[in-house]
Amino acid sequence: MKKAAIITIGSELLEGLILNKNAQFLCQELKNLGYRVVKVSTVGDDLISISEEVKTLLLKVDLLILTGGLGPTQDDLTRDAVAKVLNRSLKLNEELLSKIKEKIKKYHSEIPQNIERQALVIDGAEVLDNPVGSAPGQLLTVDGKIVILLPGPPRELIPMFNALKDRLRTPDALYQVVLKYYSIPEAVLEDLLKDILYSQNIVEVATMADHVEGVRLRLTTHMKNKEYLDEMVKKILDKTGEHLYGVNDEKMEEVVVRLLKDRKKTLAVAESCTGGMLSSLVVNVPGASEVFIGGVVAYSNDLKKHILGVREDTLKKHGAVSEECVQEMTEGLKKLTGADICVSISGIAGPSGGTPEKPVGTVFIDIFEHEHITMRYNFTGDRNMIRTRSAMMALENLRKYLKGRERV
Amino acid sequence: MKKAAIITIGSELLEGLILNKNAQFLCQELKNLGYRVVKVSTVGDDLISISEEVKTLLLKVDLLILTGGLGPTQDDLTRDAVAKVLNRSLKLNEELLSKIKEKIKKYHSEIPQNIERQALVIDGAEVLDNPVGSAPGQLLTVDGKIVILLPGPPRELIPMFNALKDRLRTPDALYQVVLKYYSIPEAVLEDLLKDILYSQNIVEVATMADHVEGVRLRLTTHMKNKEYLDEMVKKILDKTGEHLYGVNDEKMEEVVVRLLKDRKKTLAVAESCTGGMLSSLVVNVPGASEVFIGGVVAYSNDLKKHILGVREDTLKKHGAVSEECVQEMTEGLKKLTGADICVSISGIAGPSGGTPEKPVGTVFIDIFEHEHITMRYNFTGDRNMIRTRSAMMALENLRKYLKGRERV
Repeated sequence: MKKAAIITIGSELLEGLILNKNAQFLCQELKNLGYRVVKVSTVGDDLISISEEVKTLLLKVDLLILTGGLGPTQDDLTRDAVAKVLNRSLKLNEELLSKIKEKIKKYHSEIPQNIERQALVIDGAEVLDNPVGSAPGQLLTVDGKIVILLPGPPRELIPMFNALKDRLRTPDALYQVVLKYYSIPEAVLEDLLKDILYSQNIVEVATMADHVEGVRLRLTTHMKNKEYLDEMVKKILDKTGEHLYGVNDEKMEEVVVRLLKDRKKTLAVAESCTGGMLSSLVVNVPGASEVFIGGVVAYSNDLKKHILGVREDTLKKHGAVSEECVQEMTEGLKKLTGADICVSISGIAGPSGGTPEKPVGTVFIDIFEHEHITMRYNFTGDRNMIRTRSAMMALENLRKYLKGRERV
Repeated sequence: MKKAAIITIGSELLEGLILNKNAQFLCQELKNLGYRVVKVSTVGDDLISISEEVKTLLLKVDLLILTGGLGPTQDDLTRDAVAKVLNRSLKLNEELLSKIKEKIKKYHSEIPQNIERQALVIDGAEVLDNPVGSAPGQLLTVDGKIVILLPGPPRELIPMFNALKDRLRTPDALYQVVLKYYSIPEAVLEDLLKDILYSQNIVEVATMADHVEGVRLRLTTHMKNKEYLDEMVKKILDKTGEHLYGVNDEKMEEVVVRLLKDRKKTLAVAESCTGGMLSSLVVNVPGASEVFIGGVVAYSNDLKKHILGVREDTLKKHGAVSEECVQEMTEGLKKLTGADICVSISGIAGPSGGTPEKPVGTVFIDIFEHEHITMRYNFTGDRNMIRTRSAMMALENLRKYLKGRERV
């Protein structure tokens, strides 16, 4: 298996001003392309530190990626350091310089004097086009090893790297499928699938879980075993398909908006503890306006009564966090908005407000089209986590309800 | 100035499974304690890689921090690698072992067999208590240099590091103040303050800007210049105080909720393009229920009319994204909720829906208590950025309105 290393350059990283997201991105991508990443280093913008690290790592790896330090200022020394270590010259590429100047003219009235530095190319290097910013990348081959210089800003680095992926792919390239679940706990999922997941050693299995995206099952294998993995996914879906909300990058809210469009159903929501978070998730999907009408953030009991028509008696007898209340919320919402499907949430997000019968984390969710589908949950975590879990679980219940209609 | 380096250990980092937040946290903290961080490395869980990096960095720095690889499994090799490089023995600390066993018993019925590895202490090392997890840290002094081993999970690492801060502080320790603004552009702020900021070389000035937190002015100096910096902050606030929303870690929504409590005013909001985001921000502040009544997510025009009483005529003549519409939204909301202060937002978040007169990013915000304060904005960015800017700017306008009352 080929080895790779990454050097991320910049004092803003060493001073903790920015989070090193490039490192994570490149590590993930390189793994999938079939490399074993053996080291990631962060060094400052100084010639000696960069040179030393390049020299050491070039002895160990087949692919070395450097990020950052490609700007026009005297601080940007990546080009200089690599040229020095490889004992190659840096030459001004006039054609590149005029391209860079043209690009800058579009956005700025003045061209910085030092912009020439961005047109300095290491002898023998291929220039990598930067469709977003002014700093071009560079790619060199050194004794069969590849060295790549990429700009630091992620929005410039990511497209430039993606354009190189086909060239960098090795025979060990991986094939990966991520299956996403929200309403099934990690341990239950693993137990349900243990015969499929752990009776083989061709596919690497990893599970991750958090309150935003739920439980993710990441399956990785060599590209040559793609069919085997696809078969495995089919078997997994036979057992857990109804719980699966998305594959790879799909987001829950996107899936729900798509299902609403497919079913030609409109949606309105009434939120108490989530306070608008569920609406906001739905609205962030472009085109949500085709299916989403809006809703009520009925945070106070007064609003639950006055806008949604929840009965005083219900609040007194059962409280705002109750099956009865969430059902009256959706009924009131339906009258108010005329939406096909209404969803309501009421719960105790904490830190205070819990009781022995209804501790912090108690949340009721109701889905109402023709009948009520009401669920009670006991979520854990801090205020923000409980609110996020509530909103996500409401979407998950809605997703399941919409999927159920397929079978009717 | 003392130098420091960080080695973060773990294949989960090299495979891109997790983002290296520990590195950023430690870099920030070490800078403030007076260290120059010269390198951050990430290596896998193998003896040779860790040892090589420790050996190289110990020659260069005064403080070396290693994170991760302190678990009980055979993969957790940080202790072994450091002991090997320093030529010291690893000894089982029986007292520590029984403490660890006691801690595990609280949460698990079975004690893993290999737990003994977590009680292996490098000869001469001080054991650092882990109040959260089972893995203790270790601290050694080697020829006047300090080597610290910390566990990988941030929730264990952070408190353990914080407990060491007083001991690690150097005479070069820094004093830092971050001033946060939302309604003043970075360039305008810098121009307004250039005489104060750039006529001195005692305080390091950095500005950062994003759509979530706005413009942050970070002022850093040596601890001995604390009074100078505090004086400088006073001068800055004389010129820009009305725009300042928070200092250091204060969040906009916390400030607004606090001001509402101070003024004993209740709040309701009516949102179109932000679709609940503003409500959700407010609700995430613990205790928001004392001042926040709720609101309406009037995403469709029908809802604007039926719930908020926006006139058909207004929508026809001026459109939903107009001064007239946001004003009728707050008026309707006030009737509906009885809140002291009502806030409304209507805009075009894109990607579609823009016109030459009202391009994507056009947003109207109204604050209504006794009179309307209506503002029009042209925000840039993608759908999520425009929505976030709208919600944050509504909070900023509300903050300014509430502050204004002080002077009345």
